[in-house]
Amino acid sequence: MSNINTKNVISNTNSIGITSQTVSDIVTYVDKNKKEKVISLLNKIHPADAADVLEVLSEEYRKNVIFILSDKFPAETLPSMNVPILISIIEYFSLEHLIKMLSTLDTDDITYVLEICDEDLRKKILLGMPNALKKLIKKSLNYSEDSAGRIMQTDYVSVPVNWTIGKVIDYLRLSKAVPDEFYALFAVDSRHVPVGTVPLYIAMRKERDVKISDIMTTNPKIIRVGDKRQDIAFLFDQYELTSAPVVDQRGRLVGMITVDDVVDLIRQKADEDILKLGGVSGEGDLYLAAFKTARSRFGWLGINLLTAIMASVAIAIFETTLEKLVSLAILMPIVASMGGNAGTQTLTVAVRAMATRELTSSNSFRVFGKEILVGLYNGLFFAFLIGIITGLWFGDYLLGLIIAFAMLFNLILAGTFGAAIPIILSYFKVDPAVAATVLLTTITDILGFVIFLGLAKYLLM
Amino acid sequence: MSNINTKNVISNTNSIGITSQTVSDIVTYVDKNKKEKVISLLNKIHPADAADVLEVLSEEYRKNVIFILSDKFPAETLPSMNVPILISIIEYFSLEHLIKMLSTLDTDDITYVLEICDEDLRKKILLGMPNALKKLIKKSLNYSEDSAGRIMQTDYVSVPVNWTIGKVIDYLRLSKAVPDEFYALFAVDSRHVPVGTVPLYIAMRKERDVKISDIMTTNPKIIRVGDKRQDIAFLFDQYELTSAPVVDQRGRLVGMITVDDVVDLIRQKADEDILKLGGVSGEGDLYLAAFKTARSRFGWLGINLLTAIMASVAIAIFETTLEKLVSLAILMPIVASMGGNAGTQTLTVAVRAMATRELTSSNSFRVFGKEILVGLYNGLFFAFLIGIITGLWFGDYLLGLIIAFAMLFNLILAGTFGAAIPIILSYFKVDPAVAATVLLTTITDILGFVIFLGLAKYLLM
Repeated sequence: MSNINTKNVISNTNSIGITSQTVSDIVTYVDKNKKEKVISLLNKIHPADAADVLEVLSEEYRKNVIFILSDKFPAETLPSMNVPILISIIEYFSLEHLIKMLSTLDTDDITYVLEICDEDLRKKILLGMPNALKKLIKKSLNYSEDSAGRIMQTDYVSVPVNWTIGKVIDYLRLSKAVPDEFYALFAVDSRHVPVGTVPLYIAMRKERDVKISDIMTTNPKIIRVGDKRQDIAFLFDQYELTSAPVVDQRGRLVGMITVDDVVDLIRQKADEDILKLGGVSGEGDLYLAAFKTARSRFGWLGINLLTAIMASVAIAIFETTLEKLVSLAILMPIVASMGGNAGTQTLTVAVRAMATRELTSSNSFRVFGKEILVGLYNGLFFAFLIGIITGLWFGDYLLGLIIAFAMLFNLILAGTFGAAIPIILSYFKVDPAVAATVLLTTITDILGFVIFLGLAKYLLM
Repeated sequence: MSNINTKNVISNTNSIGITSQTVSDIVTYVDKNKKEKVISLLNKIHPADAADVLEVLSEEYRKNVIFILSDKFPAETLPSMNVPILISIIEYFSLEHLIKMLSTLDTDDITYVLEICDEDLRKKILLGMPNALKKLIKKSLNYSEDSAGRIMQTDYVSVPVNWTIGKVIDYLRLSKAVPDEFYALFAVDSRHVPVGTVPLYIAMRKERDVKISDIMTTNPKIIRVGDKRQDIAFLFDQYELTSAPVVDQRGRLVGMITVDDVVDLIRQKADEDILKLGGVSGEGDLYLAAFKTARSRFGWLGINLLTAIMASVAIAIFETTLEKLVSLAILMPIVASMGGNAGTQTLTVAVRAMATRELTSSNSFRVFGKEILVGLYNGLFFAFLIGIITGLWFGDYLLGLIIAFAMLFNLILAGTFGAAIPIILSYFKVDPAVAATVLLTTITDILGFVIFLGLAKYLLM
């Protein structure tokens, strides 16, 4: 448990988490070779904070700190660390030290660290672990990466359904096979199938002779080992759960997922959506070296170059029109830009509503219709505005009328495609957060240019 | 507690939450006037699911369903409902019915509903509530909207620090003033200041004669009534808490925040960031009527129009250059578009890293330098590519060289501004998610046009 000074936590919300003071203290201690200070500070603060300190340090200092810590390295920081950082530091430890540190962690945390090791190292580590633990870990690594089997911990408290509260309490007081943290008792039948749950706050309030079967929540929310991250996150969020039993294919209790793991899942899913919408696909982008980051972002830029060239080809069709009237070249980015922005607004709302299951097949048609209307309303307003501005600027009210119509059409189409693209992508099981933005802006760009220049060609020339 | 059939939950992850079947069943029952079926179905499913059903229905059906439910309306759905929906349905209930329903809820849930009522209605509701509850609610409403005081519940389990486990258990078994759900005992001193916490999973495993002071976690993480949402979310996420005591200005225990409320906070914060980056500021955008939605998105589109016109003014400076060489008009959107995309990638990573406190003043300088390097790497590559393509397309390798240089400069500048803008905004305490995108694309657009057309003017003319 943490030893952070309570006074600090109370007096200043900024001292939740690490401060730049903590980081600069570590840097100073390393510079002055005050090894004891480094060791005591990093073992005094919460492991999650120690992980943050290590992440924020430059590679050189991080390496130094780890060598200074040596066998005093706080093992619990490992599962709190970002993947690229974890990969880079794992080689600083000897095999024996790694095995020793990992053996002290929960199974789900051990799996998290082993996942990032190359196969060779993983095998060696497993070989050095106690047999029972090795079996559990191997089983966990066999489940697919984003499934409940990987996220669950394999220790939980299960009690026969016919036990009394008194018997449970005696069992908990004596047994050594109880997990460090748990929030509910899982009542199981003779086949080890969970048939109910008793939250601890219920169990604690009942007399010793009360039977588990009389106080348990029947039909508890149950997770299957194969269930996916996003379904688990939704389950906990929707039903405000703190823990849930995990069962195998035959319905038998094999593990437990607790809310602290799910908080991570929810944040990670949101992170991924934000980054994907921003055209960044790689995890841990912040911590990769510049060249690796450039390479990981390269794909989307390449696709964007392609779509930008397609837009240019569309413009090139109107080369002679542009030659005759250069004002068209000056004005044409406005229509495309407004379409892109209006479409992105619709798209963002739709993608996020899908992730939180607020946009479903039950209401997609209504939402779609609404977004076209939104495009119409804003289209009418901005068409009027840009028409007047253009008329005044170029003293040409026919040109104003043309850009006004182009604006109206493009904003309606932006709303239409902004809503349709994610709905269609998810119908074909494509993650809408990934491909939607680039598809949308390609469409609004090309349509913006073609409608504006096309109208100009036929009305002005 | 929920009565959903366990079999369904196990056999099909899609049946977590509502299915389109549930919604169409309700619609059929309403159409056929099968009132009893509507009432029994919506009271059988989990309140959070019932709220989702009501949200997904069209306004007409929603109104019908609420009138059919009448005094059988499940009160617990109210706090699970989206704000615009909640606002629209609140008027369907009589004052007495509202008071009756709200009085059954937790204080934090009552506050959530009262917040959306207009002042007149709120006063009337409070007037009808039991005195003790009224006092608590009024106090809670006095705290600022995104502070701990508003989020906390006012019932918790506090025990004198010198009690034994046995005494605590007896107290819990007999007392009626214990909250429905709790995960820890808060140990308090004689001034009611929390000095330690005992998680229930620890308390349950100890013998009756063990003293609270001997098993409590000293220096627990403590929240002050004035602490902000994002700090609370970070605290729970970082330290994997399930509950935390809330203290007033004098350090005395006044409430408790539990992890289920924080799961909401974390998801909401991520939602807000995603929507803001997409240029949508309003909460509950999905459920607003089309005209209201159009109005709420209007502001950002207006700002975008302004910046698009600024870009056009920048292009207009080069009117004579464009007249002489129309290929420039065809090519110029490419440089601007690539800059916008590369900058958005950097920006998204930076904004998200700030929200999760991975990007801090300790490493911002390093991240900034890295992003310029990333811009250089990708800039070199895409400059080469677009140079060749342009040379081949227009048979003009000087033009290819010009666009290559423009591309290189704009991608380096995009990386620079993409990292600098959120860092600078947050230095001035402006939420980087709100203003960053529009600022960035304005800069990359204008720079993209000016660098390309400027180079062309001086090298080609």
